[in-house]
Formats: sequence, structure tokens, C-alpha cells
Amino acid sequence: MPIRTIESVDAFYLSMPTIDDVGDGSQDMLLVRVAAAGQVGWGECEAAPLPSIASLICPPSHSACRPVLESVLGMRLETPADIAAVVRRVRTRSLDLLQAPHMLSGIEIALWDLLGRCLEAPVYSLLGSGRSHPKVPYASVLFGDSPEQTLAEAKRIAAAGFRAVKFGWGQFGRGTVPEDADQLHAAREGIGPDRSLLVDAGTVWVDDVDAASERVKALEECAVDWLEEPFISHAIGAYRTLASHCRTLKLAGGEGSHDPLMADNLMRFGNIGVVQIDTGRVGGIGDAARVALSADRLGVQFVNHTFTSHLALSASLQPYVGLPNHGLCEYPIHARSLATQLTRNHLAVLDDGLVRVPEAPGLGMEVDLSSVADLVVDVQIIVDGQTRYRTPEVAG
Amino acid sequence: MPIRTIESVDAFYLSMPTIDDVGDGSQDMLLVRVAAAGQVGWGECEAAPLPSIASLICPPSHSACRPVLESVLGMRLETPADIAAVVRRVRTRSLDLLQAPHMLSGIEIALWDLLGRCLEAPVYSLLGSGRSHPKVPYASVLFGDSPEQTLAEAKRIAAAGFRAVKFGWGQFGRGTVPEDADQLHAAREGIGPDRSLLVDAGTVWVDDVDAASERVKALEECAVDWLEEPFISHAIGAYRTLASHCRTLKLAGGEGSHDPLMADNLMRFGNIGVVQIDTGRVGGIGDAARVALSADRLGVQFVNHTFTSHLALSASLQPYVGLPNHGLCEYPIHARSLATQLTRNHLAVLDDGLVRVPEAPGLGMEVDLSSVADLVVDVQIIVDGQTRYRTPEVAG
Repeated sequence: MPIRTIESVDAFYLSMPTIDDVGDGSQDMLLVRVAAAGQVGWGECEAAPLPSIASLICPPSHSACRPVLESVLGMRLETPADIAAVVRRVRTRSLDLLQAPHMLSGIEIALWDLLGRCLEAPVYSLLGSGRSHPKVPYASVLFGDSPEQTLAEAKRIAAAGFRAVKFGWGQFGRGTVPEDADQLHAAREGIGPDRSLLVDAGTVWVDDVDAASERVKALEECAVDWLEEPFISHAIGAYRTLASHCRTLKLAGGEGSHDPLMADNLMRFGNIGVVQIDTGRVGGIGDAARVALSADRLGVQFVNHTFTSHLALSASLQPYVGLPNHGLCEYPIHARSLATQLTRNHLAVLDDGLVRVPEAPGLGMEVDLSSVADLVVDVQIIVDGQTRYRTPEVAG
Repeated sequence: MPIRTIESVDAFYLSMPTIDDVGDGSQDMLLVRVAAAGQVGWGECEAAPLPSIASLICPPSHSACRPVLESVLGMRLETPADIAAVVRRVRTRSLDLLQAPHMLSGIEIALWDLLGRCLEAPVYSLLGSGRSHPKVPYASVLFGDSPEQTLAEAKRIAAAGFRAVKFGWGQFGRGTVPEDADQLHAAREGIGPDRSLLVDAGTVWVDDVDAASERVKALEECAVDWLEEPFISHAIGAYRTLASHCRTLKLAGGEGSHDPLMADNLMRFGNIGVVQIDTGRVGGIGDAARVALSADRLGVQFVNHTFTSHLALSASLQPYVGLPNHGLCEYPIHARSLATQLTRNHLAVLDDGLVRVPEAPGLGMEVDLSSVADLVVDVQIIVDGQTRYRTPEVAG
């Protein structure tokens, strides 16, 4: 039998007709389709589409700054180890191409989807998990402009049945400490005493430990389970110091990781209690699974970071559905039509309030690019007269 | 008087006619020209040109994933604090655009050059340094294919008068431990006992501490002063463990830092003894100076990482010429004609064997784009029928 190799990698940039200046990552998308042996697989990068496409097809600069595509095409795709070999190859040959890991992530996800379809197995089983454990979804919403709006939103989410709710962004951390405390108390009042309350500071304090420390009292009074991203991902020293000021509050972070070692650093030296990994950024499913195992060993809670499509959601859950002790998952509830229409099927919250990955080959998602064909962005990149990239045909 | 603001940012992609598959970063270039109030300033990114250009002009994805250009144009440029404000703005608004710091770095450097010309002061003095201290240049060369070749190259470099020599890349770390030991002994024999010998492993062991540890004995026998980049920049735990196995050998790293906090992490948690910063990657001159001060406080040696033009060399020296205790500098000696022809003047190694930054406004380098006009790459990026980028005219 001939050896199966990667025959094509197509990148599609999709976008809502207008992009609002808000912290909603579902407004555009970089979708990847890979093909081998008559099958296709799909993956989604959590990435700026145009720079990522450029990283796929740019001319080389030197031996450690090469375009991603040339390290992928023609590579063998028979086993999970072959996918790991592609990742190592891209990381080595594109070491100095900063954008490369974001592009790589979508390709790697698509390779798992493709391999799972070829082998007729769900991705989690290819990762070595005997079974998939359901997850408790938490709803991610933005803080309201006022405590009253936050209270109303909290009541709505609680009524929808979510056991855990995360509020974030907006004005939180930008005003005074009492203003933030009012927002936190409104959120807690709205969801009631029994649900888990999570807060996402959206890196608002960059690396300013004092600004973050001033809010710890109100966060602990409101029984917030985790404070997410008080700082940017590289501010390990700031995470470490802030963690030493917390009694009940855990720090969460890691979504900015574009290498599993970045997440390791936050866990080992930053003393975070919850590590949040975006499979579409960290390098893909294999690297996310590596972080999940590392977290499990270190006693850190692993949670996915997902704000877009259910293709991305399935890809984000596969790395840790085999770990029963990591029971929560982020579940996008306000995504734009681009993200919701991309797939024919969705990972519903079932009557038991839990989310499961499909018991189906690959990622188990039916991508329907034709349903969002009007949102495909037409891109052309020409270098010295040669077209290096043109948006592929939707029916490819 | 009207307030001076940033009027234009032009990015030029230049390339040698052919790119060899070797670890030589001087084969292409991303050059930045900024203009304000009738003056221009120049900067060079150490970055993949096409993805960086895409990060400059791409459509926005959401509030924390915006193109770099829109955060720069129109901003005030009266004082160094204004440059810091531009950096903060880009980092916040392009937080999720991975390539952005590499693009930003060249812009930031050009802003310092421009501000220095407007204020008629060298950049180092704008950074608060009373005077500039000369540096001892070390020559960076590649290991030969055989110990004999390495020996011959070492003798040549020693004869050229360099007091410190760094060998790197090639087959080092890829073969057996005895093969590497032979290379190290050849290098030490060639340069003699009195010159400083440095070794660059070029991240060959990724995060494999054992592979690196096996070489420590030979490195210390040959009195190597530092082992550079045994691991990738994110492998802080591996740096920390390897450092604990070294008696006289120092670990060096940090060139991959695209944020000053990444360098802090390597110093504080990775226990490196030498931090190497590429001003064209870390965010520019201000962020490099921040690392230099941090290194000085922590007792870590600061050194520039520079492999390209003397525009980049001047930009890499300015952040630490005010620090007399950090006396070494990387000095590119085998750069391609693109890098050497870019500037009319050069930072020569003077008769005393030392290198100095120009006592002239800005970076003090006379960029002559017309002399490399035939190496300018023509790029066009079209999104939904609209040309978002076209290579600017050389005479702009």
C-alpha cells in the first residue's frame, strides 16, 4: 500500500462584513483544509489571518526562518507520531518566524481531523485516551457597562442553566477599586451563591502587581474561583508575586501560549492554579495535550480557551477529555454567525448540563464552507511579480 | 509651535538574489522609514519581512488584534516618553497578533533615530546615558565542517585581532559528544589560550537537558566562557537545570525575546549568566534598554545580538553603551553585501580593538537605500480588491 502523505494545505480567511472594536474573537477566522489520500481534514487557527497566511507562503529568510508550507507538504501521515514530526519540523525551520506557531496550530488540528477520518477514530482515542469524559461548560460573557447591566446578564446566564459563569473585559480594572468591587458583587448576586464565578481581567494590568493586588479582597469576598489574565503571558514574575497574595483565589492564564513550554513556565514559575490553552495557538492538539498532562502532574487545572466555532471547540476539548479530574470547559455562547454557521453540527449542552465531544472519526464536525462562502475574504499576495497566495476556491 | 507627530511609516523588504539554506540572517532585511516634520528616521527589524508587513497593514480581527500601523500613525513624537507610549499602544492593541513585536521593533528604532535627529542628540544620550563606553567586539563565525576547518578559521580570526570569538551552528550538537569535543579543542587551539572563546548551540537541543549536559565537560575543559542557546527561548526549566550542572561555564540566551519580560524570565528563573538581546526583535531600543538595566541589577551580562547591518548594530549598542560593566558586543563580520552596502558609514573596529557608537544625532548612520535599490523586493497585498500594501518608492 502506498504511504499516505500530505498533498495540500489550503488557508481560508473569513470575516464578518464589519469588525467591531470589541474583545470578540469570533468576528473573523483563519480556516485550514488539508488533504491526503482522498480525505480532507479541517482546522481553525486562533490568529490574525493575513499575517498567518504570509507565514505560510513567504519566501525564506535563512535556514531557521522558512515558510510553514514547505515543511508540511509531502510529509507522511500514517500515525500520530507523524503529526508530531511535522510540528517539530515547522518549529525548527520557522524558529525565527514569530507568526508561524499560530499558522501551524490550524494545520496541526486539520491533520488530526484528517488522520482520525482515515483511521476511523476520534482524535481523543488517537491521543491514547480510553474514553471521553463530559465537561461542565462555563459561559463567557462581557461585564456590563454598569453593575446593573452585569446583574441582569448574570441572572440571564443563571436562568439558562450554566453552573459556572465568567465575566470579563469591559471597564474591569480600568476604573477604581470600588467600581470593580461593585461589578463583582453584582455578578455574584446575579448568579446566586452556588454557581462558580470566574473573572477575566484581559491582561489589563500588563505586569503591574500592585494594581491587581488591590482587587484581591473584593474577588475573594465574592468567592471568585479564578482571576484570569491579570497580566500578559510573559509576566511570570508578576503572576508569581500576585499568587503569593491570594488565599482562596486561583490565578488563571496561558491562552497566549504559542509553545507548550510557555504554559509550563506559567505553571512552574508563575504559580498559576488554572492553565488555559487555545489549541489554535499553542501549536495544535498534540501540544495542548502535552500541557494537559503536565498540568495534571503539577496539580494545575487544565481548561480550554475557545471563543469561536464548534470546530475549534471540538479541537480544544480533545486534548483533555480523557482527564476526568479537569471537569470544566469554556463554551462560547455569543459567537457571531460566521462561527456558528461554519459547521452543520454543534456540541450542544445536553439535558444533564454537560458537553461531550462527538463519538465520530477525527474531530467529528461537519464543516460547511459553502454556508459561509459570502464571508470568504479574497486575498492575493504578489512578490516580485509572482502570485504566492490567492484565496483557494471554496469548492476545492 | 505645532506638535510633531508621526506622519508616515514605510516598510521595505530587501533580499539577496538567492537565499542559501544556512543560518545567516543577513540575506534579507525588513527596513523601516518613518517621517515627521521634514525629517526621516531608519530602523531594521530582525524579522521575516512578508509576515511582518502583513502585521503592519492587515485588517483588524478584534480589539486586541489590530494592525500595527494604525496604532503608530498620528502619534506624538516630542520626547522619549512618546516613543514608549507608541510601544504600549501597539502591544495592547496587537496583543493577539503574534508577529507584531517584530514589526514594532523596526518602527521603534526608526522613531529613536528620527527623534535624535530632531533633537540633535545621539540616541544613547536620549536614553539618559551621560557618555558612551566603547565595547570589545567579538567575531561570530560558523563551525567548520571538520575540526581542521574550525582550527584554520580560528587562526584567521585571531590573526585579525579579535579578542573574543564565537563559534556556532554547523554540525555542533548534532553528532557525538567526542565529535563536538574535537571541534571545541580545535577552536581553542586556533585562537590560543588568551582569547575568549564562546559557543553558540543554535537551540539544537530544543529542551533536552541531558544532550546539553553531556557537552559541559568539554566546554569547561576548553575554557568556553558561555554556551549560547542550548535550548529554545521558552525552555526556562531546561536552562535552569543545565545551569545547575555548570561550574565555570555560563549559559547565554535571550535573542528570541520579543518582549523584555521574556528576557527577565530567562534571567530570574532560567539562571542564565549572559542575556543577548536583538533590538530588532525585542520591541526596539527602549525595551532593550529596559532589559539592560534589569540585567545590570541582577548581575547578568548584557550583550547585543546582531547579525546584519551597521544600522542594526548601532541600534543594538545604544541601549547599553552607557553601562561600562557590560563590555562585550557582537560584531557581524561575514554579512552579505545587502547588509554592508545599506549604510554609507560603518562602525569600524578602531586601532585599540574597540567599537564605538557614532557621536552624531539619532543612530548616526547614513542609510543609502539607492545603493541597494536593485535588492528591493516588489510586494503587493490585495484584500477584497483593495491594495493594502505596495512596496513604496525608494526615493520617498
